[in-house]
Amino acid sequence: VLLHLDAANLWALARGCGVLAAGAGGDPHVALLAARHAVQERGPVPVVSLDELAGDALVVPCGLIGAPQLTNERIFSGEEGQVLCRVLEDLHDARVGALMCFETAGMNGLVPAMWAARTGVPLLDADGAGRAFPGFQQRAMHVAGVPASPVVLTDGRDNVLVIRSADDDWAARLARSGAAGLGGVCAAAAYAMPARRARTAVIQGSVSRGVALGRAIDSHQHPVGPPAIAEAMDATVLIEGRVTEVERSSATIDGTARDAGRQVRLELQSGFLIALEDGEVRASVPDLIAVLSADSAAPIATETLRRGDRVAVLSAPAHAVWRTEKGLAIAGPEAFGYGIE
Amino acid sequence: VLLHLDAANLWALARGCGVLAAGAGGDPHVALLAARHAVQERGPVPVVSLDELAGDALVVPCGLIGAPQLTNERIFSGEEGQVLCRVLEDLHDARVGALMCFETAGMNGLVPAMWAARTGVPLLDADGAGRAFPGFQQRAMHVAGVPASPVVLTDGRDNVLVIRSADDDWAARLARSGAAGLGGVCAAAAYAMPARRARTAVIQGSVSRGVALGRAIDSHQHPVGPPAIAEAMDATVLIEGRVTEVERSSATIDGTARDAGRQVRLELQSGFLIALEDGEVRASVPDLIAVLSADSAAPIATETLRRGDRVAVLSAPAHAVWRTEKGLAIAGPEAFGYGIE
Repeated sequence: VLLHLDAANLWALARGCGVLAAGAGGDPHVALLAARHAVQERGPVPVVSLDELAGDALVVPCGLIGAPQLTNERIFSGEEGQVLCRVLEDLHDARVGALMCFETAGMNGLVPAMWAARTGVPLLDADGAGRAFPGFQQRAMHVAGVPASPVVLTDGRDNVLVIRSADDDWAARLARSGAAGLGGVCAAAAYAMPARRARTAVIQGSVSRGVALGRAIDSHQHPVGPPAIAEAMDATVLIEGRVTEVERSSATIDGTARDAGRQVRLELQSGFLIALEDGEVRASVPDLIAVLSADSAAPIATETLRRGDRVAVLSAPAHAVWRTEKGLAIAGPEAFGYGIE
Repeated sequence: VLLHLDAANLWALARGCGVLAAGAGGDPHVALLAARHAVQERGPVPVVSLDELAGDALVVPCGLIGAPQLTNERIFSGEEGQVLCRVLEDLHDARVGALMCFETAGMNGLVPAMWAARTGVPLLDADGAGRAFPGFQQRAMHVAGVPASPVVLTDGRDNVLVIRSADDDWAARLARSGAAGLGGVCAAAAYAMPARRARTAVIQGSVSRGVALGRAIDSHQHPVGPPAIAEAMDATVLIEGRVTEVERSSATIDGTARDAGRQVRLELQSGFLIALEDGEVRASVPDLIAVLSADSAAPIATETLRRGDRVAVLSAPAHAVWRTEKGLAIAGPEAFGYGIE
């Protein structure tokens, strides 16, 4: 056991997840409350490494899928994790060794921790993306060739959907329609695999990195400045300035103070994807681009960014898996519709 | 084995299914071609009664769900039946004894026959409605309390969806979203049950009735008149006349010849649901209302009814299951939004 997610560590993890969300929605706040409540009732969640699991123990990547903006309106039963584990153990005829986050970012960095507390199953110190990604297939497991199926969806109540497809595109499509049927957002598990297969198919160390990032932010003097956060996550501050324009798919930041005279434009969809300066790409997905409030250092999501906001734009390199040919094909700029290198 | 569905019997069944569709869409023509092709390749389909099945043999109600108008655009693999049987045998840990039609009407009276030919499993001489009904829960099995789950959906290729819900409303909702995800229409099995449970939960004799209806139509002199069809199916001719008005949710037929001076108005949705004359209900769902061409005696669907058509309107009493309190609650006029007794 590498660490235990108690109330303090969950708080740190939530801080880290906010930054790693890279502007994507899904406020970790509600998930943090639910996870803390679960830990209060059931005790801290052990975070384990793959080495601690038997080779045939099932690793269950999981989280919420659908429309993240609905999660705050929807009350979860807390039993989603039990349902997912029960169905998967039956389908795979194997015991679940650990839950794993689809992504260590946003809500999905905390929801599996809540389920781990409630099921008594450890959380794996790994995830499927190393950051937030909107796509069902934008997972390290997909790059490694682990099939998404059987995909299990549930509302944690009476309703369970099992999707089997030899084609991950179809599995993704059916998961979307399934989430829609379950009310717009639901609990999901996909790419479940034995621990021995996970060794070369997941991004390891993600939970401890998220906690460390959160702790680093907290350990700095208050108010924590964006440069301190950049340092803690090995990121670069691309620009500090003021938001002068926000459109549906882009935002412009005019530099202030030492960045005066510079201008950075961000291309955005459900997250910040590309940063351009003078027509040149300064940073691009799969690398992480985060926008933090210059005042509070709180991460700002694409949908809450406003004209006049004083911000800092950070960029951090993606995990190596996203720099492979297959990784770039599914999570590079072209996967998001941009025609750049 | 009560009878074999060979090419001639399939043709008769298709004729019967056209009338029993009660104006609902889903032309049996494509399904007839597919079923005849399957029978040509694999031999006639044995139609069996429940008495011929072991008590624990699985009865699999099945058919297409989704948007029937899409079925003609979508090419089915023919392997849908195999996939449904394989998945259900696994889920129930029991052997499939027979396939059964969701309804002996429209396409769904023939598609399971095609699957039966291709899987080598008999077709049960029974169905879930005794006519066409649009609702997933408008099935005799639902009235009898057989749960819909596990519901299995497939496109007959790589994609399989298994839906489990303790609540049939949810199962229906998830089946709809699943069908949407699978392209708008898909193969489905629901309400699977052991033969011993089916004995009090399905409408028996439906396939042989459909074939007999079709044969009776053919045995009459050509051109077959609507009165001959009414006689063959124990129906009443409500009116013979000309369509004088067709609106989105109603149509008016003015009587001609011996019905001159009379006027019948039909309330319609995906089928003909209520027939009114002088403000009085002359026939109402769950009873069957069919509109036949006065010239060819071909059944006319709601969406193909046109002003000027010369037609006869037939009405036949519903199976007893639809006259029970629970039957009326799910398939009576109120279930379709009409406020009549």
